[in-house]
Amino acid sequence: MDQLKPNPAESSPLTPLTFLDRAAITYGDSTSVIYGRESYTWTQTHRRCLQLASSLSFIDIRRGHVVSVLSPNNPATYELHFAVPMSGATLNNLNLRLDHRTLSLLLRHSESKLLFVHTLSQALIHKALSLFPPNTPLPKLVLITEDTVASHQIETPLTNPVTVTETETERETTLDFIDTYEGLIAKGDPTFKWARPNSEWDPITLNYTSGTTSSPKGVVHCHRGTFIMALDTLVDWCVPKNAVYLWTLPMFHSNGWSFPWGISAVGGTNVCARKIDAPTIYRLIESHGVTHMCAAPVVLNMLTSFGRTEPLRKQVHVLTGGSPPPEGILRRAERMGFVVSHGYGMTETCGVVLSCAWKREWDLLSAAERARMKARQGVRTAAATTEVDVVDLKSGVSVKHDGLTQGEIVVRGACVMLGYFKDQEATSKCIKNGWLHTGDVAVVHKDGYIEIKDRLKDVIISGGENLSSVEVEAMLYTHPAVSDVAVVARPDKFWGETPCAFVKLKGQLESRPSEEEMVEFCRERLPHFMVPKTVVFRDELPRTSTGKVQKYVLRMVARAMGSLPSPSLPLPTVITPISRI
Amino acid sequence: MDQLKPNPAESSPLTPLTFLDRAAITYGDSTSVIYGRESYTWTQTHRRCLQLASSLSFIDIRRGHVVSVLSPNNPATYELHFAVPMSGATLNNLNLRLDHRTLSLLLRHSESKLLFVHTLSQALIHKALSLFPPNTPLPKLVLITEDTVASHQIETPLTNPVTVTETETERETTLDFIDTYEGLIAKGDPTFKWARPNSEWDPITLNYTSGTTSSPKGVVHCHRGTFIMALDTLVDWCVPKNAVYLWTLPMFHSNGWSFPWGISAVGGTNVCARKIDAPTIYRLIESHGVTHMCAAPVVLNMLTSFGRTEPLRKQVHVLTGGSPPPEGILRRAERMGFVVSHGYGMTETCGVVLSCAWKREWDLLSAAERARMKARQGVRTAAATTEVDVVDLKSGVSVKHDGLTQGEIVVRGACVMLGYFKDQEATSKCIKNGWLHTGDVAVVHKDGYIEIKDRLKDVIISGGENLSSVEVEAMLYTHPAVSDVAVVARPDKFWGETPCAFVKLKGQLESRPSEEEMVEFCRERLPHFMVPKTVVFRDELPRTSTGKVQKYVLRMVARAMGSLPSPSLPLPTVITPISRI
Repeated sequence: MDQLKPNPAESSPLTPLTFLDRAAITYGDSTSVIYGRESYTWTQTHRRCLQLASSLSFIDIRRGHVVSVLSPNNPATYELHFAVPMSGATLNNLNLRLDHRTLSLLLRHSESKLLFVHTLSQALIHKALSLFPPNTPLPKLVLITEDTVASHQIETPLTNPVTVTETETERETTLDFIDTYEGLIAKGDPTFKWARPNSEWDPITLNYTSGTTSSPKGVVHCHRGTFIMALDTLVDWCVPKNAVYLWTLPMFHSNGWSFPWGISAVGGTNVCARKIDAPTIYRLIESHGVTHMCAAPVVLNMLTSFGRTEPLRKQVHVLTGGSPPPEGILRRAERMGFVVSHGYGMTETCGVVLSCAWKREWDLLSAAERARMKARQGVRTAAATTEVDVVDLKSGVSVKHDGLTQGEIVVRGACVMLGYFKDQEATSKCIKNGWLHTGDVAVVHKDGYIEIKDRLKDVIISGGENLSSVEVEAMLYTHPAVSDVAVVARPDKFWGETPCAFVKLKGQLESRPSEEEMVEFCRERLPHFMVPKTVVFRDELPRTSTGKVQKYVLRMVARAMGSLPSPSLPLPTVITPISRI
Repeated sequence: MDQLKPNPAESSPLTPLTFLDRAAITYGDSTSVIYGRESYTWTQTHRRCLQLASSLSFIDIRRGHVVSVLSPNNPATYELHFAVPMSGATLNNLNLRLDHRTLSLLLRHSESKLLFVHTLSQALIHKALSLFPPNTPLPKLVLITEDTVASHQIETPLTNPVTVTETETERETTLDFIDTYEGLIAKGDPTFKWARPNSEWDPITLNYTSGTTSSPKGVVHCHRGTFIMALDTLVDWCVPKNAVYLWTLPMFHSNGWSFPWGISAVGGTNVCARKIDAPTIYRLIESHGVTHMCAAPVVLNMLTSFGRTEPLRKQVHVLTGGSPPPEGILRRAERMGFVVSHGYGMTETCGVVLSCAWKREWDLLSAAERARMKARQGVRTAAATTEVDVVDLKSGVSVKHDGLTQGEIVVRGACVMLGYFKDQEATSKCIKNGWLHTGDVAVVHKDGYIEIKDRLKDVIISGGENLSSVEVEAMLYTHPAVSDVAVVARPDKFWGETPCAFVKLKGQLESRPSEEEMVEFCRERLPHFMVPKTVVFRDELPRTSTGKVQKYVLRMVARAMGSLPSPSLPLPTVITPISRI
């Protein structure tokens, strides 16, 4: 048995790019992408990607190069998920919500050879490029316009002579586009033999997860990982052939959780939206017969608080993630005809690797109980992870399945990134002992389902107890006057740390609660050690471009407050990290 | 980019065995396997497999060993697809339709350390073991009984003192079972840490495709290949969570086209049948709410010529293969509520690698046209093959997509076997220049769909079983009156094909044997399904100038004969899934 080794026929590299070749034959006349009045078939999308890839090769884009994109969800952004790696290069899909300084940093860190810029982001990119040091080469630029016909006519490159004047050291730049997106396609060869990866471990994508500081973290995934993730998500979410998938999730978020490739494998239809608001989404759902969509809880909230009461004509399957869907939203969404699944993943895992696989017997539970079950991150998906565990932060030993003992979620499997680009140190911190360390703190329930309790750095340790700021926040959200909340650690001479709540109240309240009333509200509903000792009212909470609360800012504020003068409560009697008082 | 190499967390070996761990958590209380009154949940199946794997380890079964199984579709056979590789060993699932000589040869070729024998196959195995040469070690034996409770009680090994008396050199053997199947499970440890593969290229299964002659061909697949095949088939056939899958396809056929693992990935229910006849199948479909089944055209024929006219209460998806489903059968099947998909694969590809992906516009065609479309083998599935081609037999160049030019189907991708066990020469003939050569001759239609026209290999497919004409010829040559012989396929309405022997007798014979005597001669020496149903005496066989029999000429003659009037025996009525006629 030992003498049989992998042969070349069998070890042909796995890559999701082969899905597109097949879609062109199998689903050639079916609609691949819809965007406003634009619509393509799989034959057309395949042809356009080959033409674009051939043009990229012609302008000397090749293996080892990074090609960046700054563009919303549209046919071009979709096609680039195939065309860029088909040229051999690595796709770097940039977050549209970043500021020009961060973008400048990421373009330099990635050493992008080429940048596709959406027409609406020209000024932003101009400012970003002006921050390039004098001798640093600029990426070549290609313009993505919204009207394909019009842009196709442009024969000479656009030139934009505007110069930014800011306080930073700047470089005089002009936006010299070498071509337009449609121009590159028109010049391409539809019979191009695309560059298959030499190895399935070759990089296919680069995604930055942070970069507002001086050390950007660029997650690199390989062909094999995206191939398996794409299949896994289809199986886990039961996505059938010819599914109609609505893009509300930005493709720049972890490459749309691998759905750009997955939808091509089932010959589905990608519906792109020009606007993400409730009327647009409902209109697209009904006019195109949408069957599936991914949506953050905030989008579900928007859809269910829009004022529409008429249920959907056909059920729509929604995969939500990023944070647990709250009960009220879930209840309203179900009433509208959305079938909500909850998944968990991170850029480092290429998409959803835990999902709250629903059990039929849970249908019999009360709405509140159902929501509590669904808020759990769940179990590993079938194929993307070979193993998942929750391990004690110090000993690395698996925690008890008691729903109480907290530990860090660790995973291994094809979902795991190759590593952070040009950052061996950060890679080694994240991937060690054969596991990816997620930095998410969770418990394992008796039934084996995992539930996140906190981000590792958001854990507050008070009097020897680990407490979850997320749980305190969840309780504060149930107060009728609260609109937004974030809880962080405040240093304490006595307890080490105490929870400190930053609260934004709703507008137009008849009477505004006092800080003391908020504390009292929690005291009645939480174990004492979890009750915020400090409540601070704020008009707004600081958030990142992706909408996450910047807890480090609030932590700095809390640290500046210093310790509370004296303990307001007696010491906890039981001081294991597990139990509560 | 080049500096990022696969890390241990990411390159954790792919294996379908992890599906079972997950099913135990995610679908723990759902029904995993049903067989008559026996029924298990996924928690139980998981536990039983771990116990069995631990018992196998305890009796020193380990990596590199082969464990064979001779048993129909039942919970034990299903569990062994997990438990054997969980011990580290390779599963060799033997075809129940083989005769004792072939079985003996395969058990020796595979060097099986252990053999699970179904209670009804004891006599057969006894005869097979009696043919082992004196110094060749016998495999250890474990008995699979039908009544789990009763078998559990057996404390002392069974002894069967019967000795076979035949003309061959024989060995006095007794059937000494070391234990029963349930006995091994009862002794096992449910907390056993199963043996993960050291590499995803480690072998998981061995399947013999022929072996009545002296050169058995044992196809070896690895963990990675079966993992990807299992997922691919789920995606290609849109198998949802909690599907109810009826086993009419024998698991010993290419490991049930990877469904033993696939069904565990979606937490489906495996319904095993004691009998494969129309009343039983209809009863199981209705009582268990079957949603999916694989079935050879011969089974579909049986289901639709049974006399039942009442359509199914719920549609049942049928994946058929082995030979193209004829129009009449398709039409009747559709009328009954079966949704038939047609796939193509071979043991060397681990399951279905081409499927006739249906296009919605074909629904508008006439029944005859629809059948003609569906009879095509189709396009490659999304994930199992990275490439498929039809190439000219001499030049190796891709044929034109004109529906006329014939060439050989070649594939590459994760579906391809590691190779033939202990046969580098046969492996090199089959896998060359980075492609697996299927030996099937096909055309490519203008729409890219592939349709098989002929076979390079002398294989006859009768009732879903592949049989080698060369092996039948070899047997006929041993008849004292035979001078020359060639066996080809004769079309058959019922079986698809049956073997047809063209025989030249020696001159100056005292008495010339009749056709019936030739058939009888074969019946005594070959598995029944390999016995020619037609014998034609000829003065000469057509040969090329280099002396090769022109089989295509004989095939034309056989085709002109048309089908045999009616099956010589009724379809497997009580025939356990074991034998045909």
